[in-house]
Amino acid sequence: MTVTTPRGFRAADVAAGVKSGAAADVALVVNDGPDAGIAGVFTANRVKAAPVLWTRQVVRGGVARAVILNSGGANACTGPAGFQDTHATAEHTAAALTSASPRLRLGAGDVAVCSTGLIGERLPMDKLLPGVRAAIRALSRDGGAAAAEAIMTTDTRPKTTVAAGGGWTVGGMAKGAGMLAPAMATMLCVLTTDAVAGPAALDAALRAACRVTFDRVDSDGCMSTNDTVLLLSSGASGVEPTEAELTAAVTAACHDLAQQLVADAEGATKQIAIEVVGAADEDDAVEVGRSVARNNLVKTALFGNDPNWGRILAAVGTTAAAFEPDALDVAVNGVWVCRSGAAAEDRSKVDLTGRDVTIRIDLHAGGAQATVWTNDLSHAYVHENSAYST
Amino acid sequence: MTVTTPRGFRAADVAAGVKSGAAADVALVVNDGPDAGIAGVFTANRVKAAPVLWTRQVVRGGVARAVILNSGGANACTGPAGFQDTHATAEHTAAALTSASPRLRLGAGDVAVCSTGLIGERLPMDKLLPGVRAAIRALSRDGGAAAAEAIMTTDTRPKTTVAAGGGWTVGGMAKGAGMLAPAMATMLCVLTTDAVAGPAALDAALRAACRVTFDRVDSDGCMSTNDTVLLLSSGASGVEPTEAELTAAVTAACHDLAQQLVADAEGATKQIAIEVVGAADEDDAVEVGRSVARNNLVKTALFGNDPNWGRILAAVGTTAAAFEPDALDVAVNGVWVCRSGAAAEDRSKVDLTGRDVTIRIDLHAGGAQATVWTNDLSHAYVHENSAYST
Repeated sequence: MTVTTPRGFRAADVAAGVKSGAAADVALVVNDGPDAGIAGVFTANRVKAAPVLWTRQVVRGGVARAVILNSGGANACTGPAGFQDTHATAEHTAAALTSASPRLRLGAGDVAVCSTGLIGERLPMDKLLPGVRAAIRALSRDGGAAAAEAIMTTDTRPKTTVAAGGGWTVGGMAKGAGMLAPAMATMLCVLTTDAVAGPAALDAALRAACRVTFDRVDSDGCMSTNDTVLLLSSGASGVEPTEAELTAAVTAACHDLAQQLVADAEGATKQIAIEVVGAADEDDAVEVGRSVARNNLVKTALFGNDPNWGRILAAVGTTAAAFEPDALDVAVNGVWVCRSGAAAEDRSKVDLTGRDVTIRIDLHAGGAQATVWTNDLSHAYVHENSAYST
Repeated sequence: MTVTTPRGFRAADVAAGVKSGAAADVALVVNDGPDAGIAGVFTANRVKAAPVLWTRQVVRGGVARAVILNSGGANACTGPAGFQDTHATAEHTAAALTSASPRLRLGAGDVAVCSTGLIGERLPMDKLLPGVRAAIRALSRDGGAAAAEAIMTTDTRPKTTVAAGGGWTVGGMAKGAGMLAPAMATMLCVLTTDAVAGPAALDAALRAACRVTFDRVDSDGCMSTNDTVLLLSSGASGVEPTEAELTAAVTAACHDLAQQLVADAEGATKQIAIEVVGAADEDDAVEVGRSVARNNLVKTALFGNDPNWGRILAAVGTTAAAFEPDALDVAVNGVWVCRSGAAAEDRSKVDLTGRDVTIRIDLHAGGAQATVWTNDLSHAYVHENSAYST
């Protein structure tokens, strides 16, 4: 059920002391092949962390053998010195892996790097590099579950998944929790597959999957400097799926992980699906969904179990989507509290006592639809994010 | 110091019972002339309240004699019936004013209407219309201060201002507190002047003033359905200022009221000025300022007295403004905690214990600048907005 479920992958975790305390903070995923395919999708933030700048270069070639990840520090906004730290980490990982398995003959360019944690501080390389060596010694075919724990920051539980193909699988792990926003969350995600798939097929499948999963998760509207989703292929199954089959499995894995991210977002008490239907096109539906997902007044109302559809309409009204204000319908948990832009069913019928909330918005402007997932805005969110670095 | 400071205006307040409790909830401002000029700026939200739809028509002609305002209900998302309520309010006000001063001979189109309060509920017309008649009986030359109290919702204090011209003045009142966002806040603002100024001059001055004041206040990123800023001219001073003089005075009045809005925003513990300098153009500076102002992670950090400049950089990075990530400088309360996109001065030097916070961001991309004002995101914000309608 993890990155080591597909054949050809080993993983490990280590408590290297990058984080304070004894928690694991370094994870390693190694692709033993025979293939060494990789694809990646990264944050759209123009302020990109050093590991994003580095790993973007690595995936450009479509080939990589390992991913080294750390929590306890994002290595973002750390200047040229921070980039050198990432490069040194990749180089050290490549050299130590080659030393452990000389047939590999790896260079730094074979190693993707991911970091997560506080922005603006250098990584303690004196702890990280020994951690890399320890992780290599600990590599195992069932190391995936532990690796998923090592990348946690404010996550309360590890996130792993698996999606089955015909004779091949896709496995995955992710960390999220806070700064969850399009393209993407403060999230790291490593997916593995033993399918046979070239770089172009991997890239197409990963982009298609992210577009309808991670890119539609918007926990708090904030876009991170470090978001990275990687997909590695070992080809160890010997089976080459069609592009549609690969995309379906990768999408299923991403969808599952995305739902786990929303379920475990910082300080959330609600898991909210905003279903926009009747849109002129899919972009309109996403724009409306995102606008509602980011509206602090909608989010605080839901935290207070208040089906305040007026705030939902006000959020819809800030978009450029095609709709007429007096044609909007809104349902909260199945009760159509707003029809034709005005009050309809009695709002007291809405039951918001549970954790799951579904808001359905009918724009009556066409046949397209999309769902955006978000959370409420709670006291705990304010608390966690005002105390994060102190 | 109010809307009745300029000559030619009377105002009144009444507790009509639109709100529960005994608080004043209806305000009236009457322009006794000789001129009856009016200009208006309204919310950019496409879901517009009935009074916005109505008053937009009124100001189009450039002539109006009165503004009737109520708190206790926004009359937004109330459909055709809600629009009829607004129309009836204007008609009733016009008829009652004409009956009190027959020389006026007013029609509904001479009366602007503003409403504020909860979205999605009809106004209690059986209380509002008697309130209108009572307000007319209470009109006085020193009614401005009380009128400013009648339009309060979650405001903790009334907001009034005056700006002096040469032999003429601009007076004003506003309500805000929450849903403060561009174009504009959940705000109502009535400005008056006894300057001689035609509709085109009024309109130009008001638009220029709003652009650099109310439009740059972004308390919580949420755009209201009801925002209205009106400027009425009586010409009673007999002095006709230049367009520049009028614009300067109206801008001063709007700036003062905008600062009062930010100072009294719902649940805020900080009043934050985001000064963006070194921008390629003013639009870039505003975009960057607004992006930082809307970032929940920046806002919660400041609530926690945490000069988390990494989150500021991450917010800047989501914009399309011209800048290089490794050229960004950020100061918090005068301490340059970030230079060239990386850590600089010791963040422990930043004193965030006070209410006022200044964030200065140098994009190093040109000579333009702009300031956006916002608030922190506090426990009290979550509390007030999750309990608002219950």
